[in-house]
Amino acid sequence: MPSLVLIRHGQSAWNLENRFTGWWDVDLTNKGVEEAREAGVLMQAKGLDFDLCFTSLQTRAIRTLNLALEEMRRLWLPVEKDWRLNERHYGGLTGLNKAETAAKHGEEQVRIWRRSFDIPPPPMEAGSPYDLAADRRYDGIQVPATESLKDTIARVLPYWEARIAPALKAGNRVLISAHGNSLRALVKHLSGISDEEIASLEIPTGKPIVYQLDDDLAEVERYYLHER
Amino acid sequence: MPSLVLIRHGQSAWNLENRFTGWWDVDLTNKGVEEAREAGVLMQAKGLDFDLCFTSLQTRAIRTLNLALEEMRRLWLPVEKDWRLNERHYGGLTGLNKAETAAKHGEEQVRIWRRSFDIPPPPMEAGSPYDLAADRRYDGIQVPATESLKDTIARVLPYWEARIAPALKAGNRVLISAHGNSLRALVKHLSGISDEEIASLEIPTGKPIVYQLDDDLAEVERYYLHER
Repeated sequence: MPSLVLIRHGQSAWNLENRFTGWWDVDLTNKGVEEAREAGVLMQAKGLDFDLCFTSLQTRAIRTLNLALEEMRRLWLPVEKDWRLNERHYGGLTGLNKAETAAKHGEEQVRIWRRSFDIPPPPMEAGSPYDLAADRRYDGIQVPATESLKDTIARVLPYWEARIAPALKAGNRVLISAHGNSLRALVKHLSGISDEEIASLEIPTGKPIVYQLDDDLAEVERYYLHER
Repeated sequence: MPSLVLIRHGQSAWNLENRFTGWWDVDLTNKGVEEAREAGVLMQAKGLDFDLCFTSLQTRAIRTLNLALEEMRRLWLPVEKDWRLNERHYGGLTGLNKAETAAKHGEEQVRIWRRSFDIPPPPMEAGSPYDLAADRRYDGIQVPATESLKDTIARVLPYWEARIAPALKAGNRVLISAHGNSLRALVKHLSGISDEEIASLEIPTGKPIVYQLDDDLAEVERYYLHER
């Protein structure tokens, strides 16, 4: 039975500061490092093991993966990194404090930007200090100016179909370290969650989500790995 | 001009204890971690950058690479891991203290095992605690019972030709994190060092070796990166 584990990166500096992060490459806090290590210890203690790993091009997800694999003594596993597993691009909200943004634009507007399925935040403005067009990590990629969750799903799923699903069907046990919204995209797809419900599904940092899948890669079972 | 950097992993626990390590998966010491980070800081300060990285299946080389890339903010670079970049397999000497081995077998015999080009140490015995036949990292690979430097070269160079040389010729700047003897194999090949001389070429831990290569990937210039 194909098995898959999803993990959202540990706490980042901007999770802690309550700022919109998106594609900005914020690193883990010390707590985030601990969360990642604990996830590795827990996965090993529960007998989970993997053949292949996927992650984004963002430091916080890559380090979470590396720290977990280090604890599992599995640093030697192959890892594929791809921008399509990146966090949702928060456009013009990138770098802003969530409370300040709510004070400025109203709670309701911020709720819509954060939790609607298909309404993106305003685009990032030219000259923004958070513009990534010149970051060579994204050479050859059209960095989005902003993304809704729907937009995020529209680039995560083709990658799933092209790279991850074939690996699972070939019998590989897969670990994916990614972000709140790129993981929402996968959970929505695998568990058949509606457009309305998916945006309010909270994925906690550093908690492995275990999927048992059928041969068509639909959910048979899904649970958070707990120390129990 | 193709450019290549080689780095030997930072100090490992068995470097410190003066034990033969080979394929046994010994981790870095705290000093080894520092060496790896300093290598990353130095490479960044000197303006080095990369497109593609290669490493072995051994934790000490992978962590050295990851720590250096972390300091360079380049964790997102693609990394290919392969057993053919592993350290020389030390056969029956694996795990033994070098001084004790010299006391038992004589200095001259140990010198031959360590420094001859084509005389391998005695093979690892069945039931050795350091036997890796059951380690699934090496599934599908015939783990050697022992290796001379010549044997090591014989599996490093086909990998170089198959994977690394084409990447360099395609214009990628390459970083390789590996081991004393797998790096000797590469240095011998690139710099045209004789069978007699190569075994005594010492490659220090954590010091980046910079190669500028011609279009046929022969050495134009080779130097240790220093803080100067």
